[in-house]
Amino acid sequence: MKMNRILTVLGLSTIFSVAANAQYSDVPPKESPMKMKPEMTEIWEPEVKVITPGKLPWDAPSDAIVLFDGKNLDNWVSQKDPKKPAPWKIINNEYMEVVPGSGGIQTKMKFGDCQLHIEWSAPDVVESVGQGRGNSGVFLQNRYEIQILDSYNNRTYANGQAGSVYKDHPPLVNAMKSPLEWNTYDIIYRAPRFKPDGRLDSPATVTVLHNGVLVQNNVTINGLTLYIGLHNYPEAHGEDVISLQDHGNKTQFKNIWIRRL
Amino acid sequence: MKMNRILTVLGLSTIFSVAANAQYSDVPPKESPMKMKPEMTEIWEPEVKVITPGKLPWDAPSDAIVLFDGKNLDNWVSQKDPKKPAPWKIINNEYMEVVPGSGGIQTKMKFGDCQLHIEWSAPDVVESVGQGRGNSGVFLQNRYEIQILDSYNNRTYANGQAGSVYKDHPPLVNAMKSPLEWNTYDIIYRAPRFKPDGRLDSPATVTVLHNGVLVQNNVTINGLTLYIGLHNYPEAHGEDVISLQDHGNKTQFKNIWIRRL
Amino acid sequence: MKMNRILTVLGLSTIFSVAANAQYSDVPPKESPMKMKPEMTEIWEPEVKVITPGKLPWDAPSDAIVLFDGKNLDNWVSQKDPKKPAPWKIINNEYMEVVPGSGGIQTKMKFGDCQLHIEWSAPDVVESVGQGRGNSGVFLQNRYEIQILDSYNNRTYANGQAGSVYKDHPPLVNAMKSPLEWNTYDIIYRAPRFKPDGRLDSPATVTVLHNGVLVQNNVTINGLTLYIGLHNYPEAHGEDVISLQDHGNKTQFKNIWIRRL
Amino acid sequence: MKMNRILTVLGLSTIFSVAANAQYSDVPPKESPMKMKPEMTEIWEPEVKVITPGKLPWDAPSDAIVLFDGKNLDNWVSQKDPKKPAPWKIINNEYMEVVPGSGGIQTKMKFGDCQLHIEWSAPDVVESVGQGRGNSGVFLQNRYEIQILDSYNNRTYANGQAGSVYKDHPPLVNAMKSPLEWNTYDIIYRAPRFKPDGRLDSPATVTVLHNGVLVQNNVTINGLTLYIGLHNYPEAHGEDVISLQDHGNKTQFKNIWIRRL
Repeated sequence: MKMNRILTVLGLSTIFSVAANAQYSDVPPKESPMKMKPEMTEIWEPEVKVITPGKLPWDAPSDAIVLFDGKNLDNWVSQKDPKKPAPWKIINNEYMEVVPGSGGIQTKMKFGDCQLHIEWSAPDVVESVGQGRGNSGVFLQNRYEIQILDSYNNRTYANGQAGSVYKDHPPLVNAMKSPLEWNTYDIIYRAPRFKPDGRLDSPATVTVLHNGVLVQNNVTINGLTLYIGLHNYPEAHGEDVISLQDHGNKTQFKNIWIRRL
Repeated sequence: MKMNRILTVLGLSTIFSVAANAQYSDVPPKESPMKMKPEMTEIWEPEVKVITPGKLPWDAPSDAIVLFDGKNLDNWVSQKDPKKPAPWKIINNEYMEVVPGSGGIQTKMKFGDCQLHIEWSAPDVVESVGQGRGNSGVFLQNRYEIQILDSYNNRTYANGQAGSVYKDHPPLVNAMKSPLEWNTYDIIYRAPRFKPDGRLDSPATVTVLHNGVLVQNNVTINGLTLYIGLHNYPEAHGEDVISLQDHGNKTQFKNIWIRRL
Repeated sequence: MKMNRILTVLGLSTIFSVAANAQYSDVPPKESPMKMKPEMTEIWEPEVKVITPGKLPWDAPSDAIVLFDGKNLDNWVSQKDPKKPAPWKIINNEYMEVVPGSGGIQTKMKFGDCQLHIEWSAPDVVESVGQGRGNSGVFLQNRYEIQILDSYNNRTYANGQAGSVYKDHPPLVNAMKSPLEWNTYDIIYRAPRFKPDGRLDSPATVTVLHNGVLVQNNVTINGLTLYIGLHNYPEAHGEDVISLQDHGNKTQFKNIWIRRL
Repeated sequence: MKMNRILTVLGLSTIFSVAANAQYSDVPPKESPMKMKPEMTEIWEPEVKVITPGKLPWDAPSDAIVLFDGKNLDNWVSQKDPKKPAPWKIINNEYMEVVPGSGGIQTKMKFGDCQLHIEWSAPDVVESVGQGRGNSGVFLQNRYEIQILDSYNNRTYANGQAGSVYKDHPPLVNAMKSPLEWNTYDIIYRAPRFKPDGRLDSPATVTVLHNGVLVQNNVTINGLTLYIGLHNYPEAHGEDVISLQDHGNKTQFKNIWIRRL
């Protein structure tokens, strides 16, 4: 199309059309193509928003929502009964610990696309093996689980170990620290999109750094995390809470912040 | 996560958690993995909708909206003034022809993702060269142009010839028929998605068959078609009309149908 | 980077670097951005290859390899023993028919990315139900099956009916013709890519038109077609033959052509 | 397809075909679909490789190649003459500093897909404005630039500031630290793929964290970084060096490590 859209909008397309053949050469150029100027590929607007990054890599930047800073569980509620406070324990004003049997906890706020930073540690006392050791999980939109497990010297199925998208994608490597150390997850999450009629439009994807090491590289999440059966997207949903799983082990969490994308 | 979501929903997660280690072996299996049954990868619901395909490849299937069948322009209006009828000419109750200077035409209905079938012919009398010969275009969502041009023995810039995404992607091959023959475009279009705040979420993509030959293979449309400057997505939009361009040449069209995807 | 790569190649980067601050304004422009010229977004090279499309939509274009034109099976061999001729029957110098029990047939040539046109008909005599009726299949790269089945008034699992990627994706609609008519498949296939170490780099994708109706819209093929179990990509492979399945039914085929992409 | 591929390979397909209708029910199941077992979605092989993450988030994990640890420039050479040592200065056995006019430096080793960690600081003395202040860059595969600039209180074009893919994508936010502090880039890079004939098969993509904040979210790199004109992929290439730009400013670098992906 050789018609300037603005002309069309102004109702000048006729004039332009008539003039078209006169105005522009329709024969191939004899010389080399017209050279651009450097300024032509500069983008000045909109101006990029300035934020203040954290002082240390694990610190929340200025545009993050701090979900847990060690002091209280005010941003969380019980999964069994979201009207009740989160039933987990705060220790040393520094971290929280799963109270086995109390049920999972979830944020009060809902999220979609996000960058999530979370630190966690396997229970100090090593018990059981495989899926029985230090099992918990971060559920994005309350549905899609990044597995938490004590995968330090503890083999289980690859798509069930720490850093896996549970029962979906094994981590690229096992970057686990010992139960006496803290692990970090830096998660870049794109929520699934649904069409107005409820069908899946595009699946969720996720990138995960475990202790700074890439373990999920923009993988497609194949659906709702299920213990049994094939994953899929049974129904449309919007933003939703982030939840942490009580799987009966005293997993610990600290320094949780999130940025909406 | 080892917890059946259904149990969680029922509030039984505590019971389950307690039982977990007993119920499921946490040690690696000694034998080969449990074999699935054929039925486990069958999908029975929902049942796939039955439609009746056209008798011939160019006929509209039963679930298509026929936009033009040669009889009238009832589904189209003038682009200059959408309150007025489409100002192009119907010939032989078979096809329409651009009336140069009358302006483009557009559908009354709006569309997003779609499969579009359209047949067109370059003007019978060959005039001018390059972009001046048999120039028109199909604008998806009134913005993204699949170029129409008499590209039969008529060189122009590759991303401006028939089958191109105008000023974006050249066609893979030049599959043009002579001005005395009809061409077909079968277009599979995915509209761009925008975020609630108006930013682009995912760009449009398109696949085009020109006379049955693949000329655009799921390419990304880089933005609003522009005669001058770099393409981008300046603003969010929803479904919109399909328009046909008046570029001053007597291009002909027939047998236009569309299926929403 | 403000350095013209060509200068770098010529070893002039130092000169350029020194001159940089003088040559280019580093302050934001006061006026509107510099306007481009229409010619700056034209792509002239390479010239797009000219081909001759088929006269009718089902005719092979000039750049296609005709795999079967009704005359002979010279381009095909037996799957049981690729050193032996294809054991199926030619009828009326027009189409071939599966000889049940003789085994599948495969092309002599190997293909990767391609556009494939194939016409097929369910057996004239309707027998059995579900997967037992008119079952066959087109295997891309001898591995990934587009299902062929008599899906005319014959319900089976959605991801096992005509137009499905077998045991993977159901077709978007059921566009099946009656057993007395011919069906067309127009398939646009992108082969999987593998890394040098054999891991999957990107999965295969496919778009399928069944009788001109879109039934697979650029879907990801999740792996090797399997009757039992989860699909995946167990090993790297290059181009491979296209095969047609003998599933015990007298399915008929004609007019098969392919274009490398 | 209902045929077990293994049978086909064994030449048993005939037997199987004959038996097919007997062995498997072709009628829709009366009851709910057969339930899977938890073990069926476990992946045990291959075992995920164990690595040791860095003690601190900026430390190299055990499977990284340390490109610069402050001690020497042994892994780098001059861009002007790759046979010569890297001409930049090492300070305090801790960091290196650009020697303006000496030209860029590049790694001896070549890389494709990678996770790259690099720390950098704008010059201590603030001079000039816009692109003239603290300008340098990391070139992935010696071609695709992640811009380095002192973007602390220093506006320039958005796709030219720190964290941009130069002249391509602005960063999502400006997460810049002051010239007296160190910045980190954590880059997850997927190299472009090319077809055997040299055409682009899939463009490069990149994710960048700047000081732990997501600034590039899996964006498509539109081609070779150019100061003037439209980016594209003019020719196929394989793995290549990583280079750091001398743009006339005393930018500093430390703690550079890379992991092949």
